[in-house]
Amino acid sequence: MTTDIFFQIVTPDEALARLYDRMAAAPRSQRIGLNDAAGRVTAAPINSPEDSPAFARSAMDGYAVRAADTYGATEALPAFLTVDGEVPMGAAATRPVQPGTAQLIHTGGMLPPQADAVVMVEYTQPVDETSVEVLRPAAPGQHVIQAGEDLAAGDELLPAGHQLRAQDLGVLAALGITEVDAASRPVVGVLSSGDEIVPVDAAPAPGQVRDVNATTLTALARQAGAEVREFGVAPDDRTELDRLTREALRASDLVVISAGSSVSTRDMTADVIAGLGQPGVLAHGIAVKPGKPTIVALADGKPVFGLPGNPVSAMVVFGLVVAPTIRRLLGARPADEPPRRRARLTRSLASQTGRIDFVPAALQQRDGEWWATPVLGPSNLVATLVRASGLIRIPLDAGGLPEGAWVDVEPF
Amino acid sequence: MTTDIFFQIVTPDEALARLYDRMAAAPRSQRIGLNDAAGRVTAAPINSPEDSPAFARSAMDGYAVRAADTYGATEALPAFLTVDGEVPMGAAATRPVQPGTAQLIHTGGMLPPQADAVVMVEYTQPVDETSVEVLRPAAPGQHVIQAGEDLAAGDELLPAGHQLRAQDLGVLAALGITEVDAASRPVVGVLSSGDEIVPVDAAPAPGQVRDVNATTLTALARQAGAEVREFGVAPDDRTELDRLTREALRASDLVVISAGSSVSTRDMTADVIAGLGQPGVLAHGIAVKPGKPTIVALADGKPVFGLPGNPVSAMVVFGLVVAPTIRRLLGARPADEPPRRRARLTRSLASQTGRIDFVPAALQQRDGEWWATPVLGPSNLVATLVRASGLIRIPLDAGGLPEGAWVDVEPF
Repeated sequence: MTTDIFFQIVTPDEALARLYDRMAAAPRSQRIGLNDAAGRVTAAPINSPEDSPAFARSAMDGYAVRAADTYGATEALPAFLTVDGEVPMGAAATRPVQPGTAQLIHTGGMLPPQADAVVMVEYTQPVDETSVEVLRPAAPGQHVIQAGEDLAAGDELLPAGHQLRAQDLGVLAALGITEVDAASRPVVGVLSSGDEIVPVDAAPAPGQVRDVNATTLTALARQAGAEVREFGVAPDDRTELDRLTREALRASDLVVISAGSSVSTRDMTADVIAGLGQPGVLAHGIAVKPGKPTIVALADGKPVFGLPGNPVSAMVVFGLVVAPTIRRLLGARPADEPPRRRARLTRSLASQTGRIDFVPAALQQRDGEWWATPVLGPSNLVATLVRASGLIRIPLDAGGLPEGAWVDVEPF
Repeated sequence: MTTDIFFQIVTPDEALARLYDRMAAAPRSQRIGLNDAAGRVTAAPINSPEDSPAFARSAMDGYAVRAADTYGATEALPAFLTVDGEVPMGAAATRPVQPGTAQLIHTGGMLPPQADAVVMVEYTQPVDETSVEVLRPAAPGQHVIQAGEDLAAGDELLPAGHQLRAQDLGVLAALGITEVDAASRPVVGVLSSGDEIVPVDAAPAPGQVRDVNATTLTALARQAGAEVREFGVAPDDRTELDRLTREALRASDLVVISAGSSVSTRDMTADVIAGLGQPGVLAHGIAVKPGKPTIVALADGKPVFGLPGNPVSAMVVFGLVVAPTIRRLLGARPADEPPRRRARLTRSLASQTGRIDFVPAALQQRDGEWWATPVLGPSNLVATLVRASGLIRIPLDAGGLPEGAWVDVEPF
């Protein structure tokens, strides 16, 4: 079996490197309207179709002037100019500024012919209805945004792989671009395994519990930019698990299986994943707590992840390996690590070097400082999932931490 | 006019305090399925309909035992137990654990009758096919999650005003809750004013520019949880601006007007907002740069915001006053300040005490440290909006900052 060499615990980054080395990322794309484009990823660079601004504009409220008319102006010896009307907003400024004259202009107004500078209203003094004193000299081009200064036609506005933010959409709109080529959302197939798990809409018999992970992972996958297809729950039956997994693989670009909590379910899931296609399992076990029993595999070009059944573990591993792989399928640039909240521990925490530890925590602000209270214990599923609002991240090389220590907390 | 006393520059917090004091927040609610509930806000507390777990479960892989059978067990003198089969996963454990016996049990398995503890498999040693040595004593209840221990039927699971996260949905699913009462999305009416502004799909004539803000503010309002209705662009005509604003106010729960850049447009917009309804303008001018010429008003119960026409200013003010007001209309608890990225300035920055300064910045990582390069200048609209990925926040009481200084950067 080709996968034997991979049966050592590796860091999440190493697991992803193995996957990305072997995975072709050629995202499909689709044309979408700007109104649907927030959060989507550009499938190709977007170039400016026109100069921006399209005409020379004033950057200030003031007077459009010939700079030469203001040379040497001071408060003691101002330049005296005749006010020759006002530049209309939203219309072409066609009337030239004659020597010795100025035209009132507003921010964003079009610079009239012959004018080459704007004097801020603060540096002028009205003399009467039709004349004004300029108290400072204006350099040519001062407070003028030249045509094409911001962006010339053909300039790259946005690269491929860029996740569109509100302001990107605004700028596209300003340039008259109302549709973009966006990466199609990859389809993530979500399934669960385990005899004790029943679907959410089923009534659990004694010994059974409803599936937490399908709902959680579906929401996380959508947040990461994917479309989700749910494939339900497979019982502890190799044939049935294999059938359902292959069905998910056929219909999806990426498959996530959260394994039930018994050893036999986990082994069976690992076995089924290993047999799905080439090259098979790339990592079995990652140096993360919780989340160690994670499987990262590639089956005939499609990533397959086996996640632990514990909901907190599944969430942690999803964030570490599945979400970045969805971004990669989208052709998106890797996300920057999000800013983390610095908080102090309300109690000491044990940790082990050689693995990344994540500890769910409730966060509270006291006297302007954030404090993190670890939520521990296997019994409080609800407390851990619902009451925690952060994940304390303890790096690979850190040991335990005393009460009061500063830690980095990720949103949870 | 009742609004005269409000014509001083105030902090954004003071402007919001005036608004919230006078604004009734009684969000409408609607019943939605879990699949559509990510990011929505609970309209009422959600209580647990059942005990969780519904039966006593094992928290570990090991053996279900009678604790008393293991008292005094040590590695030197282990307790010897007969293995009486295995607890099935996903089925009721009905066979009692007889004195002197143990049943193999998996994590999540149902504790059989008469058993009161679980011994971890690590603290046992198989003797033969049907017997095992226990190397440590188990206390009653050890590694057992009692029925209802996590949550009892009727316990509050989530308060009203909680924004639903992936894990909250998972827990609701686990409890069989497939629908929730969520706050209905408030309708935000977006309009722009200014003779120089044309809608995105219009071809601008010389002197005209396409509307940046309607697109940007629409995306931001949706991100904040609102539904958006766009009301287009009003020319600099008092009657027309008044008509369009009243139309927006009738059809919306909150109105955002971004004013054109000429002084007369701004004055006209302020005038129209003041006349919309009682109590009228609550703040005209906030101590923020950019964003000073902001209007916060309440017209017959509905918040109305006049935002500056500059797109960066409009975005900054939206984040400071409009987004929190949308959260309030949703009945959501105020959001915690998001964690900020600490970065160092690549150049010095001027600032003024007495106001909050926001400076768009491009962020880069160098040798593990983040560096922020301010993007300044009125001409580079595209650079500022597209190339910047952060907003440097300089607090009310801070003056200028030297190159290399550490600053807080918000996502942009």
